[in-house]
Amino acid sequence: MARKPVIAIIMGSDSDLPVMEQATKVLDENKVPYEVRILSAHRSPEDTARFAASARRNGIRVIIAGAGGAAHLAGVVASLTTLPVIGVPMETAELKGIDSLFSTVQMPAGVPVATVSIGKSGARNAAILALQILSLGDRRIEKALGALKKSLADGVRKKNRNLGR
Amino acid sequence: MARKPVIAIIMGSDSDLPVMEQATKVLDENKVPYEVRILSAHRSPEDTARFAASARRNGIRVIIAGAGGAAHLAGVVASLTTLPVIGVPMETAELKGIDSLFSTVQMPAGVPVATVSIGKSGARNAAILALQILSLGDRRIEKALGALKKSLADGVRKKNRNLGR
Amino acid sequence: MARKPVIAIIMGSDSDLPVMEQATKVLDENKVPYEVRILSAHRSPEDTARFAASARRNGIRVIIAGAGGAAHLAGVVASLTTLPVIGVPMETAELKGIDSLFSTVQMPAGVPVATVSIGKSGARNAAILALQILSLGDRRIEKALGALKKSLADGVRKKNRNLGR
Amino acid sequence: MARKPVIAIIMGSDSDLPVMEQATKVLDENKVPYEVRILSAHRSPEDTARFAASARRNGIRVIIAGAGGAAHLAGVVASLTTLPVIGVPMETAELKGIDSLFSTVQMPAGVPVATVSIGKSGARNAAILALQILSLGDRRIEKALGALKKSLADGVRKKNRNLGR
Amino acid sequence: MARKPVIAIIMGSDSDLPVMEQATKVLDENKVPYEVRILSAHRSPEDTARFAASARRNGIRVIIAGAGGAAHLAGVVASLTTLPVIGVPMETAELKGIDSLFSTVQMPAGVPVATVSIGKSGARNAAILALQILSLGDRRIEKALGALKKSLADGVRKKNRNLGR
Amino acid sequence: MARKPVIAIIMGSDSDLPVMEQATKVLDENKVPYEVRILSAHRSPEDTARFAASARRNGIRVIIAGAGGAAHLAGVVASLTTLPVIGVPMETAELKGIDSLFSTVQMPAGVPVATVSIGKSGARNAAILALQILSLGDRRIEKALGALKKSLADGVRKKNRNLGR
Amino acid sequence: MARKPVIAIIMGSDSDLPVMEQATKVLDENKVPYEVRILSAHRSPEDTARFAASARRNGIRVIIAGAGGAAHLAGVVASLTTLPVIGVPMETAELKGIDSLFSTVQMPAGVPVATVSIGKSGARNAAILALQILSLGDRRIEKALGALKKSLADGVRKKNRNLGR
Amino acid sequence: MARKPVIAIIMGSDSDLPVMEQATKVLDENKVPYEVRILSAHRSPEDTARFAASARRNGIRVIIAGAGGAAHLAGVVASLTTLPVIGVPMETAELKGIDSLFSTVQMPAGVPVATVSIGKSGARNAAILALQILSLGDRRIEKALGALKKSLADGVRKKNRNLGR
Repeated sequence: MARKPVIAIIMGSDSDLPVMEQATKVLDENKVPYEVRILSAHRSPEDTARFAASARRNGIRVIIAGAGGAAHLAGVVASLTTLPVIGVPMETAELKGIDSLFSTVQMPAGVPVATVSIGKSGARNAAILALQILSLGDRRIEKALGALKKSLADGVRKKNRNLGR
Repeated sequence: MARKPVIAIIMGSDSDLPVMEQATKVLDENKVPYEVRILSAHRSPEDTARFAASARRNGIRVIIAGAGGAAHLAGVVASLTTLPVIGVPMETAELKGIDSLFSTVQMPAGVPVATVSIGKSGARNAAILALQILSLGDRRIEKALGALKKSLADGVRKKNRNLGR
Repeated sequence: MARKPVIAIIMGSDSDLPVMEQATKVLDENKVPYEVRILSAHRSPEDTARFAASARRNGIRVIIAGAGGAAHLAGVVASLTTLPVIGVPMETAELKGIDSLFSTVQMPAGVPVATVSIGKSGARNAAILALQILSLGDRRIEKALGALKKSLADGVRKKNRNLGR
Repeated sequence: MARKPVIAIIMGSDSDLPVMEQATKVLDENKVPYEVRILSAHRSPEDTARFAASARRNGIRVIIAGAGGAAHLAGVVASLTTLPVIGVPMETAELKGIDSLFSTVQMPAGVPVATVSIGKSGARNAAILALQILSLGDRRIEKALGALKKSLADGVRKKNRNLGR
Repeated sequence: MARKPVIAIIMGSDSDLPVMEQATKVLDENKVPYEVRILSAHRSPEDTARFAASARRNGIRVIIAGAGGAAHLAGVVASLTTLPVIGVPMETAELKGIDSLFSTVQMPAGVPVATVSIGKSGARNAAILALQILSLGDRRIEKALGALKKSLADGVRKKNRNLGR
Repeated sequence: MARKPVIAIIMGSDSDLPVMEQATKVLDENKVPYEVRILSAHRSPEDTARFAASARRNGIRVIIAGAGGAAHLAGVVASLTTLPVIGVPMETAELKGIDSLFSTVQMPAGVPVATVSIGKSGARNAAILALQILSLGDRRIEKALGALKKSLADGVRKKNRNLGR
Repeated sequence: MARKPVIAIIMGSDSDLPVMEQATKVLDENKVPYEVRILSAHRSPEDTARFAASARRNGIRVIIAGAGGAAHLAGVVASLTTLPVIGVPMETAELKGIDSLFSTVQMPAGVPVATVSIGKSGARNAAILALQILSLGDRRIEKALGALKKSLADGVRKKNRNLGR
Repeated sequence: MARKPVIAIIMGSDSDLPVMEQATKVLDENKVPYEVRILSAHRSPEDTARFAASARRNGIRVIIAGAGGAAHLAGVVASLTTLPVIGVPMETAELKGIDSLFSTVQMPAGVPVATVSIGKSGARNAAILALQILSLGDRRIEKALGALKKSLADGVRKKNRNLGR
């Protein structure tokens, strides 16, 4: 990945990696350069603040943040940048991610977090949403998204045929 | 507003207007041309599909969709476009918008909806998120967002001074 | 199954088949012809719309739709047909199907979805509800439902005797 | 209303009337004869059982039952008839109708209740669902539903024009 | 158990037996005669009604009813008897018993169900509550309850000593 | 009320009185002597413990406890007596009584609280449940309960006639 | 208030003041010097970080933070100080403060927030908890807390006498 | 551990030990003397009351209480002491600890419980919160907390480097 990353994927803990890899896979497939960082709103707040405050001038265009429980990561980053920030609520052992969802989505007026679904579907969707955002200035990605959309329908049709009726 | 709209704000019913006007206000203040439409995933599905399928080639760059209850509007539109779609869950009389939130955010892998907070804060944030997306290719908007962020902090500081302690 | 299907069972993904087979079993036992299709409100919206818009004139009389998460399938279909549409909320990994339930049942005035219980019981009940609807014009099915009801009570009585007290 | 009722609208208390009148209005507009009864699963269980057990032979074809809290009315009636039973969960003061919804929809395998949305939208939708069921054997009602569907889209379009943009 | 049963333990399905045996164990230990029946509010409503209507004159003094999902059993029985009815909400696969709890406890004014905790603790507590009720007219049971209470504290103290500090 | 109270109605605060008076009304109508006390598990724990520990020997036969929020009153009393304790969860401003319900009903094995519905219906039902318990040893109350049950059905029938159809 | 503040009461917006004044009242009554600041985790993140990082060396001993929605204020402050941080979840219009509660309490291992009840009771309790913490090194406050506890019980007893029975 | 305990860790059952050991581990590492007791609000109320009422004069400075379900332990103890009481809501089989959380945190005005997150993270955080409280009068612990905070950030940084990018 020689090109400079345009997407940053950050997460509160390396235990979130298996979920967030749903996002890196999409970016890899679409050849969009990205970086991955472990950054915790609560355990490494200063590193997180530094990252957020400098992301835009470092060439990052979209930030994807995965966090669980009192999931402040996306919101904390969003408070320090004017880049679009996408939040992926992690599933949690006890409250099943509803705590992560509320903590990520219920941001006050002025500081949006673009929240996607809980867990793996959300991680994959975060990357697609990032592609949609980049596609506004990049015809290659716009085409790739068109192909991806077509492949979704084709996949359903193929499953349909496999029903054997 | 002579310039061609780049943002479409759609909503399921005109009763959602007082909430969604939080979004139009932000766009007006930032001189970003937009259009507003009443479109219902359930009551006018064909108009909605037509709108969604043609939005990109009509010059729209971000779609903001507000809906309540079994809130399918954002998802239905997202299924038919590769543009970023921002969903605003409306507060509902009975379940207080938690039905709208789940229906908007819990999208399957492949079709993201960028969900913001329930109600008026969410509508305002949807517009700011749209600005953040546009700012990636527009220095004027990037600057405006920087000013907006500064004004948020200044607003808090002013309130602080008014405490009179 | 040579006769033309009168019931359509649709679902968002083939992973829903093990649940929805609770419905096909009931229809098989009662010799009611049906068709099964994978159709996704979000991944194959155009196929779904085509299906819904033509179902009535194709001889379908009741549509059973199973979907999970932001479960729009039943609602999207109901927006495009005047047939009765029965929604089966799928259990989901994170929110346990409460997202599917809210997304399916909380439809706006004008476009009902007849929602049944979450998961396998719901799939079975969807088929019975379809039989109840067909029974209004079909004495054979009316009788079959009477027998089914009796067998429910007999089943309970038999279990009771097996308690051995 | 000289013709024999084909729909029965029952409810647990006369305090549910303002909600359930959303259903009678639809039936009145569509000239479908119906009866309205106060019947409580808990306060008049024997009357309720008698009603349910005889509804089919009395010419009723669809039963609409509204109830709140531990809302057993629809389920109790469904246990005693093979007619389709539509349940309308009433909004409740404390739990906002989520108790009514769970009590109505989560029926065990064998005894479906076709559940619609909480409150007034649900009452209106219950009547439309009843019409959809009747329409399978009644071309007049089928046409009326087509007109209703068209009027929904027209209503949205009219609101759209009124936005004045 | 030659003596006539004074407690009836009923449940919607024999799959509830492993939970409800927490209740029979308590009654066995305290030598209180009881009967166990499978009775379903929805699948065998007439048997259930017959049981409820005759329980008091058959010598039953307290009814314990376990049911899950749209858990109507306790409420249906309570509507047909003036005996105290204790409801045990079963844990359910999807909604974890919160549907059972709401369906059991949220009874309308006039028809109480004495609801205990979800699942096995609840089944055990239902039996103890039944003993507490019987103890008002039975000194032997009153003493047994005093001993039970003491044994609870002794159990805790013993665990405490076993901590080995 | 010259006779010695056999029922104690306790509540955490005098602000609960308007709700708990639904219980006193039932007891007044049925001429069952009772006492009312403000007792707080958290603010007057020693008074509460003293009351609970001595209630049985003071002639109390059933305790009705109303409390809201982290509603410990019923559970604390139940831990110190072998009398049946009925818990009435109060509606709360924020969580609508679901906190009160969970805190009251989810008691551990060994210490039951007979929980009734949230708020006024629950208070009324608590008194009726207390009457049902007393009725096991009191034919007058047994008869009164039979009359009450009959009046419930009569009330429904009367409302039915008033529908004027 | 000439003495240096030992408690800091911070909140996300001046609209939280009427709630948080329940805390200042307790501190005023107990003559504990405090400061009040409007600080927003999302709108003035740098001021908030500066405050948190310097609070300990500025003589603050306990921080009380009130915030609503995706309530990150207490958590963000806790990530930057080793002082005890007490979080007061604000009631919110839509989700009634359950979002605030989850966002405040569900902190990851390593960074505790001492969470109290939602809304005004919580604000008052936050101040009492702060007093309890200070009381470990301050006999005057320890005595004041003893008096407060006694006054709680006295208040209940007085209300009891006023019942006039 | 020869020194007199300054922290008491109590829990409702020895089955809570594996969770609460997250707390003892932190105290062991920081050489803070503590005691562990099984005490049940419901099964051994008198022992619990005795413990709570004497804790302060026995040298205890902070009480950590873990309990699940209708989790009254922390609240009951808080009602009888002026020491800071930290509540750890246990995860429960059915309601996943949301019952424990509501029962612990929603305390009435006057009697705070410092509630931490559900389960193991909460137990660990309870101990850290206790250290934060003790640190106000103990420079050694203050330093240890500074080191702990630094180690949290270092841990995140190390994980970051291990990503190998």
